[in-house]
Amino acid sequence: MKHKLCVIGYGGMGGWHVRHALESDVVELAGIYDIKEERQEAARRDGIFAYDSLEAALADESVDIVTVAIPNDQHPEVVIRALAAGKNVICEKPAAITLSEFQTMADAAKRCGKLLTVHQNRRWDVDYLAMQSICDSGEIGKVFNIESRIHGSRGIPSDWRGKKEFGGGMILDWGVHLIDQMLRLYGGRKINQLYCDCTYITNKEVDDGMKLELIFDDGSRGYVEVGTYNFISLPRFYLQAEKGTAIITDWREKCQVVRCDHWHESEVLPVQTAAGLTKTMAPRDEVTTTAYSLERPESDVHDFYRNFCRAIEGKEEQTVKLEEVERVMKIMEACFESDRKKQVLFFDEGL
Amino acid sequence: MKHKLCVIGYGGMGGWHVRHALESDVVELAGIYDIKEERQEAARRDGIFAYDSLEAALADESVDIVTVAIPNDQHPEVVIRALAAGKNVICEKPAAITLSEFQTMADAAKRCGKLLTVHQNRRWDVDYLAMQSICDSGEIGKVFNIESRIHGSRGIPSDWRGKKEFGGGMILDWGVHLIDQMLRLYGGRKINQLYCDCTYITNKEVDDGMKLELIFDDGSRGYVEVGTYNFISLPRFYLQAEKGTAIITDWREKCQVVRCDHWHESEVLPVQTAAGLTKTMAPRDEVTTTAYSLERPESDVHDFYRNFCRAIEGKEEQTVKLEEVERVMKIMEACFESDRKKQVLFFDEGL
Repeated sequence: MKHKLCVIGYGGMGGWHVRHALESDVVELAGIYDIKEERQEAARRDGIFAYDSLEAALADESVDIVTVAIPNDQHPEVVIRALAAGKNVICEKPAAITLSEFQTMADAAKRCGKLLTVHQNRRWDVDYLAMQSICDSGEIGKVFNIESRIHGSRGIPSDWRGKKEFGGGMILDWGVHLIDQMLRLYGGRKINQLYCDCTYITNKEVDDGMKLELIFDDGSRGYVEVGTYNFISLPRFYLQAEKGTAIITDWREKCQVVRCDHWHESEVLPVQTAAGLTKTMAPRDEVTTTAYSLERPESDVHDFYRNFCRAIEGKEEQTVKLEEVERVMKIMEACFESDRKKQVLFFDEGL
Repeated sequence: MKHKLCVIGYGGMGGWHVRHALESDVVELAGIYDIKEERQEAARRDGIFAYDSLEAALADESVDIVTVAIPNDQHPEVVIRALAAGKNVICEKPAAITLSEFQTMADAAKRCGKLLTVHQNRRWDVDYLAMQSICDSGEIGKVFNIESRIHGSRGIPSDWRGKKEFGGGMILDWGVHLIDQMLRLYGGRKINQLYCDCTYITNKEVDDGMKLELIFDDGSRGYVEVGTYNFISLPRFYLQAEKGTAIITDWREKCQVVRCDHWHESEVLPVQTAAGLTKTMAPRDEVTTTAYSLERPESDVHDFYRNFCRAIEGKEEQTVKLEEVERVMKIMEACFESDRKKQVLFFDEGL
């Protein structure tokens, strides 16, 4: 039997949830509720039932999943009310603006005996999944540096994303995805320290870009960058491992790998580069390496709802776990602190 | 009348100096001296006079310029002896391993009333010069972020470059160039702080790579990266300015620019990227920007010797000034300290 879903908030992401939840073929839509009357009307025009109020939506006993897709600052209140009404809850990312708010939400889920998860949809990105396959397969050895960049050129959209009180800024908007991906790429490694430097080019109130270096307990580095004033983009992913390098120039492109098969070469001759000779930067003899590209991984975003329904039924662990979300929230809070202090922070997860 | 040159050290760079000094058509070669007999013989086979000893070379009164192209740790002694012998001196980079050694050299030049310069040949790199032209022309507004990367895949060459006592490591070998270029790109701006993180992948004794973030007094950022374990290279230069972005993928390639002509667009629609919608990262409507490439700047490395001769004659300022070299030395010492402490260092040039 299908689970019954109510979506709170019928903006861009609310619409996405309605469409993809239905396509995932495990839920039926009971209806939506949006605080704005024009969005309620938009839903009705789309043939969707719109509850008169949040109370009415949460009072519908046929509903067992509530998805919350409203501005970030309102997540805690609505999520906790939905949990208290006996619903399992999917919350849009970032789950909350502060770690303590998130902890209140996680505590409420425990107290109510209901499932709470966060829509970390970019775990289904094929570019990220290609990087994950390199980390998991070990095909170019142990990975020790991963750089993850997303570059746009429009600044922050001129809506709530530019306001601090609504949880705006790029750390919370995109950092939350890229940090979550990075932690998964590095599996069980703990973070020892971090350094975050934000940009305030088009917006002084919240960060419109971030650069974050993570140093893990085994010396590996993770670099996360979000930019909104980049009229040319740097590659989406860059990865260094003991036996090679991988790159994804753009999320539409395949992952390119150069594997080093033989470290030593018979002879290194200095070459001319620009205005000088160099031995160090001389290109390798191509017989020492193999270049190839990875097939784009299969990915189905509908697995998010499928997993959550099976988790409600007790048949599977939920994919996006609250302790993972909490760890990302902790890192984001440390990013704000590091940027404010302009200092490296020791972040002793190993202790 | 041509100046008379003696080159101390006839290795890779010594040979470069002999060839390019002669091609610059302002000097005659008196001879060379190398501590290794096989290099003395190589010079003789090349038709070049080889002095019997350093003393003999420095005693030749016909010589007025001595170029020192020997391992880094030996620069101070030989440079100071050449100055004391009344010669004008060109020293290979890095001028010294430590700031205090360099200051001793600079003091000796002042005391002897002779010119001393350092062969910062990468000021003639066409990739760097293209970036300089964007900074100088202001064609895309004020520049606020420059990223300068050089990536090789051979580790450190297995010679003195891998030994600490000889001044090995990538900060001293390539950092010295990229930092010098960065300071010139940002003209008169002062450094407020820096953070340096080195790699020790193929060598534990000295750094085989470095990542350096400089924050200038007006908030501009300069990023310098040297890598020797990168089987795929990231772009050589990336530059962000108020009205656009520029990139040089490789020193062989032209500089590509995207200039933003109109910040606002009539309407921004969210687009699908990978596993999710995004408004922030949606590509721009191309009518709001202009893409073009810069012609590769003219550059003649022989201008280094031409300038130094004119400086000796009192007709020109020397291009590579000792205070510039000293500033780079200070930054490199701070890089070692920041990497060792794994902390951001305040570097109050503004004071």
